[in-house]
Amino acid sequence: MLHDSLVRSLFNEICRIPLIDPHSHIDPRRPTARSLDDILGYHYYTELAHSAGMSKEPLAPNVEPRRRVRALLEHMDRFDNTVQYSWFLEIARTFLGFEGERLSPADCDWLCDQAERLMAQPSWESQVLERSRLEKVFLTNDFDDPLDDFDTTRYVPCLRTDDLVFHLDKPEVRRRLAKATGIEAGNGTSLRKAIGGLFEHFTRHGAKACAISLPPHFVPSRISLAHPPAGEAVFWMLAECCRDFKLPFDLMIGVNRRVYPGGVYQGQDLFDQRTSLIQYAELFNAFPDVPFSISVLTSVQNQELASYSWIFPNVITSGHWWYSNVPVYVEHDTRARLQAVPKTKQIGYYSDMYKLEFGLPKYNMYRRILAKVLADDFVRTGVYTESQALDLARLLLRDNARRIFNV
Amino acid sequence: MLHDSLVRSLFNEICRIPLIDPHSHIDPRRPTARSLDDILGYHYYTELAHSAGMSKEPLAPNVEPRRRVRALLEHMDRFDNTVQYSWFLEIARTFLGFEGERLSPADCDWLCDQAERLMAQPSWESQVLERSRLEKVFLTNDFDDPLDDFDTTRYVPCLRTDDLVFHLDKPEVRRRLAKATGIEAGNGTSLRKAIGGLFEHFTRHGAKACAISLPPHFVPSRISLAHPPAGEAVFWMLAECCRDFKLPFDLMIGVNRRVYPGGVYQGQDLFDQRTSLIQYAELFNAFPDVPFSISVLTSVQNQELASYSWIFPNVITSGHWWYSNVPVYVEHDTRARLQAVPKTKQIGYYSDMYKLEFGLPKYNMYRRILAKVLADDFVRTGVYTESQALDLARLLLRDNARRIFNV
Amino acid sequence: MLHDSLVRSLFNEICRIPLIDPHSHIDPRRPTARSLDDILGYHYYTELAHSAGMSKEPLAPNVEPRRRVRALLEHMDRFDNTVQYSWFLEIARTFLGFEGERLSPADCDWLCDQAERLMAQPSWESQVLERSRLEKVFLTNDFDDPLDDFDTTRYVPCLRTDDLVFHLDKPEVRRRLAKATGIEAGNGTSLRKAIGGLFEHFTRHGAKACAISLPPHFVPSRISLAHPPAGEAVFWMLAECCRDFKLPFDLMIGVNRRVYPGGVYQGQDLFDQRTSLIQYAELFNAFPDVPFSISVLTSVQNQELASYSWIFPNVITSGHWWYSNVPVYVEHDTRARLQAVPKTKQIGYYSDMYKLEFGLPKYNMYRRILAKVLADDFVRTGVYTESQALDLARLLLRDNARRIFNV
Repeated sequence: MLHDSLVRSLFNEICRIPLIDPHSHIDPRRPTARSLDDILGYHYYTELAHSAGMSKEPLAPNVEPRRRVRALLEHMDRFDNTVQYSWFLEIARTFLGFEGERLSPADCDWLCDQAERLMAQPSWESQVLERSRLEKVFLTNDFDDPLDDFDTTRYVPCLRTDDLVFHLDKPEVRRRLAKATGIEAGNGTSLRKAIGGLFEHFTRHGAKACAISLPPHFVPSRISLAHPPAGEAVFWMLAECCRDFKLPFDLMIGVNRRVYPGGVYQGQDLFDQRTSLIQYAELFNAFPDVPFSISVLTSVQNQELASYSWIFPNVITSGHWWYSNVPVYVEHDTRARLQAVPKTKQIGYYSDMYKLEFGLPKYNMYRRILAKVLADDFVRTGVYTESQALDLARLLLRDNARRIFNV
Repeated sequence: MLHDSLVRSLFNEICRIPLIDPHSHIDPRRPTARSLDDILGYHYYTELAHSAGMSKEPLAPNVEPRRRVRALLEHMDRFDNTVQYSWFLEIARTFLGFEGERLSPADCDWLCDQAERLMAQPSWESQVLERSRLEKVFLTNDFDDPLDDFDTTRYVPCLRTDDLVFHLDKPEVRRRLAKATGIEAGNGTSLRKAIGGLFEHFTRHGAKACAISLPPHFVPSRISLAHPPAGEAVFWMLAECCRDFKLPFDLMIGVNRRVYPGGVYQGQDLFDQRTSLIQYAELFNAFPDVPFSISVLTSVQNQELASYSWIFPNVITSGHWWYSNVPVYVEHDTRARLQAVPKTKQIGYYSDMYKLEFGLPKYNMYRRILAKVLADDFVRTGVYTESQALDLARLLLRDNARRIFNV
Repeated sequence: MLHDSLVRSLFNEICRIPLIDPHSHIDPRRPTARSLDDILGYHYYTELAHSAGMSKEPLAPNVEPRRRVRALLEHMDRFDNTVQYSWFLEIARTFLGFEGERLSPADCDWLCDQAERLMAQPSWESQVLERSRLEKVFLTNDFDDPLDDFDTTRYVPCLRTDDLVFHLDKPEVRRRLAKATGIEAGNGTSLRKAIGGLFEHFTRHGAKACAISLPPHFVPSRISLAHPPAGEAVFWMLAECCRDFKLPFDLMIGVNRRVYPGGVYQGQDLFDQRTSLIQYAELFNAFPDVPFSISVLTSVQNQELASYSWIFPNVITSGHWWYSNVPVYVEHDTRARLQAVPKTKQIGYYSDMYKLEFGLPKYNMYRRILAKVLADDFVRTGVYTESQALDLARLLLRDNARRIFNV
């Protein structure tokens, strides 16, 4: 795959670094896929197939899974140019023993059979982790997750707070909060107590971060709590708790939800490029002791991210999110960060995956790009030796996450 | 020109694909240039010469054409670094037999003589089409074009609607509309009828698209018709007609007109990068059956375009427009689209030309970049064989346009 | 350092071009460093060290300089990936005789001793100028600088006007203005007279430009003078004076001051990417005879800059400023400008330096990138011969500045 021998040699060494994956959507009770339907259920495939002309009918819950898989495979030749297709092909080759050049509907049954057979092995989870070199995988837990029935040293809990900031006006969310904390959050004081209770529960169970995704026009600010509380005020309260409980705060900035409400599940969100990190200046200044690990949705905003991280001690660049997780943007953004941001303040990549099988192809995409950037910008220019370049890769893929998130 | 043998081989094969050019400003009654003045009258040359210090005096209509050509050639050494200069040099070499390295005022008479002699040949139009591999060329017709005196299978009509949306308050435009349709558009109902009449006329004469260019802050929305009608309301009516008459709608997003009113003809427009496709979300949702073929004016907005096309089934990426039709941006934007958007939803390129002679150098620029991207991102990485890469090129240059515009 | 022989050969030739550096913060009474503390006092090092975890304590004025240098060196292994680190390493190697691979705290005393010994030489200034090939260096002078005690043909005065536009409401600034001009600027007329006096003083002493840095949301406009005068009105008055005194106006667009007030000295400013040159359209139209030499803070805005310069005769692209002065952005932006803007309208680079020693590594960074762009986009594509490519480099580094600024 890599025709440049220096890049290939760096890539091979980078692949030996055990990974700390600081953001995923893995369900720790069911971390791997059990069928090809679990793999192709990833929203990248359903949304690309739908975008390329597939109706949503095969995605209905009552459709027989193998029929759904076949429908997706039937549309795949419309998007076999995409990087997402290449992830799937790499999964088929690495984990399912596929040896062909292209995937077609004719492969459906064989692939499904292979998947069911292989994924049923008791050792499947550890096989996948080992081949991918995944050591720890961060989760994205609902605030009312009991966190008591999985290995939290392998699957690191992380408190997801979108519901608290954006949906606290919904009775269902208030009910869940009351049930999880035993507190009816009727006013600012009781809400603060309830949220404090969540942080206590999470940190006691090994949580290492608080996380949220935010729309492009969100401006955190220290405002007083009204009733019902504005999202900005709840957000500020979360930042206070991050400070008090010494948790880094992952901010994933820039997503508009339900822009295409007719889209497939999880394939409805887009963005408005007109956003700025200046919206977060008050926050960064107010919480100098909270590490803010920041993802931006567009490559356009990456220069802001690199610049804010170069100036603010508590701003950390994090991964390549969603619509920016495309090679041309990953490369451009990686180069900018490596040229301008202290190397100790960068989280190179995270998988954002729902099933462990995606760790390997996604990280491999990043590892190939990283190898190329290290070769061209560092080794060939004489800035670093190969060995020093690999030390940098280790920071990006493992050591920075360990230090920043204290794992 | 191409020192990489894989790129050269791909380029040579790509050059054999017959082109459907889905956007131009060709006058089908006079599609080719008849003199060098027609070539150098393209606004790229007048505006670059003016920007580099030439007064507008040689551009006055009463100036002898050869004097104008000489004035432009005299300023050309100030912008012989630009890609636009390279288009002209390629025209001079390919179509006029120029064999020198650089163009200078000393070449003026020889070039003018050659142009007049060669362009006067009865076969000139078909020579140019053949050398450029142009099979069909879309036009941009005024709404009151009779469309009855040219070959609409070669020159495909397209209903340009800028006047209707932005200048319907002008008596001259209302007069033209009344004359073309026989309807005095006094209220919403009669306007709808008049516009319906235009669509009928155009589709009956082989029109395959409706088109408009839009300023950065335009937000289409379903508002009721006031008097005089707001542009947004007329625009919405056009989208309804596109749906009813099954015409794709070409949106060219982002241009501010007359930013430099002292500039040369057609060299006065610029932009405001602060724009977003979120402004079009309501439109895309309201018309799921209308293919929106979208051009953006800035490379900055290309990530939005690629992302919206990846999610919305009815959003198609289209070409590289105007200020983004520069190699560094064409390459960056092409790579992003090919890595993230279904290959069936991409119109690779269009010429935007006023005279057929520009098809060759503009498409060649794109063909070279496409060959490089296919080599680096597809063939060398093992994603595609050379033959599959050429299939992709065929979609981008021909087959997608045929399917989407139904030609 | 450069493994491509064409690039290396172009680089070597480019290095022979005597430089006109059209923007710096050099103090002409003390142009060079006198110690390593002067070098590492550059805000790039203090801010990167602080961002990477160094407290501000070592930066206090009463701290012994060598202790400060040691503190910075101790943190340098946290940002030895950055281009700013590579500038320092190049200074240590070229000017201080350092022969190691990496810099560490163990080198502190040796480096400090070398710096003090070498920089104390009477010929130090001319040694530095000669090795860097710097012929003329533009300054950024306070409006009340007497300008009478240095060689203004080598160090070219430039009237910095930030204080007049943004701080004229401060008594201290009004006092300085009154003292410098002998005029109490109580109303519009007297202010105009006072500012006219500054322009007279500056042009009489060889000033060749007026300069200002502007926040992202600034919109110059012809408004009448209130009391106290709005910044926009003072700015407009400055443009009138530029016209009347035939001085180019350097606009450095996009900086927000004190975004991180807890940061180190000069390390507190950031930006909001949401800005547009459309804000300057009225200005560009109103002053066709004033050359506006424009820097933008983000690479995102570079397409606007290139496009506005391609259209407006009085808009000139200038250098790569601050957060965009990072190789990946310099390369992308340079390519776009060279492909789309007349070559006579481009100022390739400026140092922005406070001490002459930084001219060499900063210009070398640019010269390497320029050599690569010339090789790939011009020589290898057959657009230019090597010799013509070097002519272009000469325009960018010297001849355009001489012509535009009339030096």
